[in-house]
Amino acid sequence: MSIRKIGILGGGQLGRMLLQAAANYPVETFVMENDAHSPAAHLCHHFTKGDITNFEDVYNFGKGLHAITIEIENVNDEALEKLELEGVKIYPTPAALKIIKNKILQKQFYKKNEIPSSDFLITQRLSDLNQQLHFLPAVHKLAMGGYDGRGVQVLKVKEDITKGFDAPSILEKMVEIKKEIAVIIAVNSKGEHAMYPAVDMVFDQRLNLLEYQLSPAALPENVLWKIEAIATKLVKKLNSAGIFAVELFVDKDDNVFVNETAPRVHNSGHHTIEGNYSSQFDMLWRVMLDYPLGCTEAILPAAIVNLLGAEGFTGDVIYEGLEEIMKLENVFIHIYGKKETKPGRKMGHVTILSKEKQELIHQANRIKNTLKVIAAPNL
Amino acid sequence: MSIRKIGILGGGQLGRMLLQAAANYPVETFVMENDAHSPAAHLCHHFTKGDITNFEDVYNFGKGLHAITIEIENVNDEALEKLELEGVKIYPTPAALKIIKNKILQKQFYKKNEIPSSDFLITQRLSDLNQQLHFLPAVHKLAMGGYDGRGVQVLKVKEDITKGFDAPSILEKMVEIKKEIAVIIAVNSKGEHAMYPAVDMVFDQRLNLLEYQLSPAALPENVLWKIEAIATKLVKKLNSAGIFAVELFVDKDDNVFVNETAPRVHNSGHHTIEGNYSSQFDMLWRVMLDYPLGCTEAILPAAIVNLLGAEGFTGDVIYEGLEEIMKLENVFIHIYGKKETKPGRKMGHVTILSKEKQELIHQANRIKNTLKVIAAPNL
Repeated sequence: MSIRKIGILGGGQLGRMLLQAAANYPVETFVMENDAHSPAAHLCHHFTKGDITNFEDVYNFGKGLHAITIEIENVNDEALEKLELEGVKIYPTPAALKIIKNKILQKQFYKKNEIPSSDFLITQRLSDLNQQLHFLPAVHKLAMGGYDGRGVQVLKVKEDITKGFDAPSILEKMVEIKKEIAVIIAVNSKGEHAMYPAVDMVFDQRLNLLEYQLSPAALPENVLWKIEAIATKLVKKLNSAGIFAVELFVDKDDNVFVNETAPRVHNSGHHTIEGNYSSQFDMLWRVMLDYPLGCTEAILPAAIVNLLGAEGFTGDVIYEGLEEIMKLENVFIHIYGKKETKPGRKMGHVTILSKEKQELIHQANRIKNTLKVIAAPNL
Repeated sequence: MSIRKIGILGGGQLGRMLLQAAANYPVETFVMENDAHSPAAHLCHHFTKGDITNFEDVYNFGKGLHAITIEIENVNDEALEKLELEGVKIYPTPAALKIIKNKILQKQFYKKNEIPSSDFLITQRLSDLNQQLHFLPAVHKLAMGGYDGRGVQVLKVKEDITKGFDAPSILEKMVEIKKEIAVIIAVNSKGEHAMYPAVDMVFDQRLNLLEYQLSPAALPENVLWKIEAIATKLVKKLNSAGIFAVELFVDKDDNVFVNETAPRVHNSGHHTIEGNYSSQFDMLWRVMLDYPLGCTEAILPAAIVNLLGAEGFTGDVIYEGLEEIMKLENVFIHIYGKKETKPGRKMGHVTILSKEKQELIHQANRIKNTLKVIAAPNL
């Protein structure tokens, strides 16, 4: 095999970790992103400053490449469709991306394919919610453009509906959740797949951001089988090669529902860098280079803690307590290289490996309490 | 901690793997190398085209950086000495580098510090060998500039001495070797150290290049203790922070001799990327950022095979058989991104993990027979 030219749309931390893994393979890398100082910008062969939502920018970037992947769903899919017709391989396919990036189409896809997911209604404008009060408590989600907790509102009672969205959205029946679970699944061009062990996701309710995550998830075998069957059916019906992160709810009766799917490498798979033999990033290169899929087995149980910009700090980032947490055995930091911190911004993550699950939880809490992402004082 | 500016002299595969690991840390990376298409050139924040053996180039590159490390010994150490005086941290220290880069000083250092190493004589010119025939069979090694099998000649009988070097060299008494062993040892600024398990190195006698290497080495415990004691004493006497690769011989009576030391990340530690919790590359960033040392424990036994350019091929590289070897469980490739192959050139390596040592040897041989680094035909 000779060297393949592969592009990434988006230059954030996912692109950064993809490029760390890319350097193992015979590949020439291209990144497009508006910010020339983004986390991935300095780790590729060719950086293009451009708008990933703009048809011309994406089309010009992709012409002549062998393959393209994405870091974020919010990209120009018409350009990707044209590139696909011209022979560029797109991971995920533009057809799969179009379904997933619109939450209305995504929910309709689950329904049509009998993939369990919570009941939902479609709203086109805020006033539509007045007719749906019987459906509360529910979660209102913007069809397009929501990300990292933005574009999601919990509507418990009638008075909450003013917080809803005045744009096409879905209103999802609230599920009484016992657990939130994620699985990463890789699919190659032959339709073969490889699934990583499911992970428990523990959320910060206020920011709706992941607090920490534990792999493998502590679930009875019959629930794990359900999760596996659902995720497998989902990617089969999407009919696209790539990496997919499927987030699921488990209710008190051990019913399993799909919450949502991301058609790309995902925060819920970051522990696979140290915790599994082939990481999600390694795996995506294997898929894009048409290599056999890698080994998804866990090396050791793992936890990750996201490093979020602390409340009240905006400016040049300082990582406080880094040295102290680096003393802990088998603790691995990943700093995303963003120059400026702001409240809630994802600035890095920490992975912990240990045979003992209790030890993982203990260390995850210790890391959350020790490591602070703050800003340098303005002098 | 805020972001540190750290430079690497040399832009080859060692720099490339260092930069893959660097992207986990709060560091701004600088590389200097003559070839703007070298393996590491596209993975740093700032690439400088320059001559690492030139005083002005190295000094100008290093001014204003927090720290510098090297990828190869053949760098301008006077510039590093000046930078050290001006407060730039150098890993290894210029004093240690000067000892190691000159094989005469290196051997004298072992002798002075009672570190076991084979007997030797110093020759200044080829004709000096005529007086030393009683010392044969021996190995003639150029004091300066030898690398990867170059600058080394085996002189068995009188007739061989014309193959010797007409420049300052050492003539080492041939040791009857049972095994060649390497250990990687990390030393931090406080003088604390962490050692990786010793590895067995199996050499291709013809090219004097590593054929494959197995970790951990199969040796009786008392021999491992000797190796550990010798390597520890060696780095203590060198009195420098950094990563050191110590290559040793074990003779038929289980005596242990130091062959040579490299004051940097090294081919004999490449398996640590997948095979150990903290790799040699990760470890060097920990040292340079003044973080606690990482965990050197093995995850699983590991082997590596170097991918060398096949005989008879020069030109644009093609990796033949890559897909086939990627099918093997827990086989990891590292392609160095060199555009052009030539006979014997290091183009990449493959790591194999397995609980079973026999399986490692079997897979290593299979990889050597399957994977060929050839050149595209000229059209």
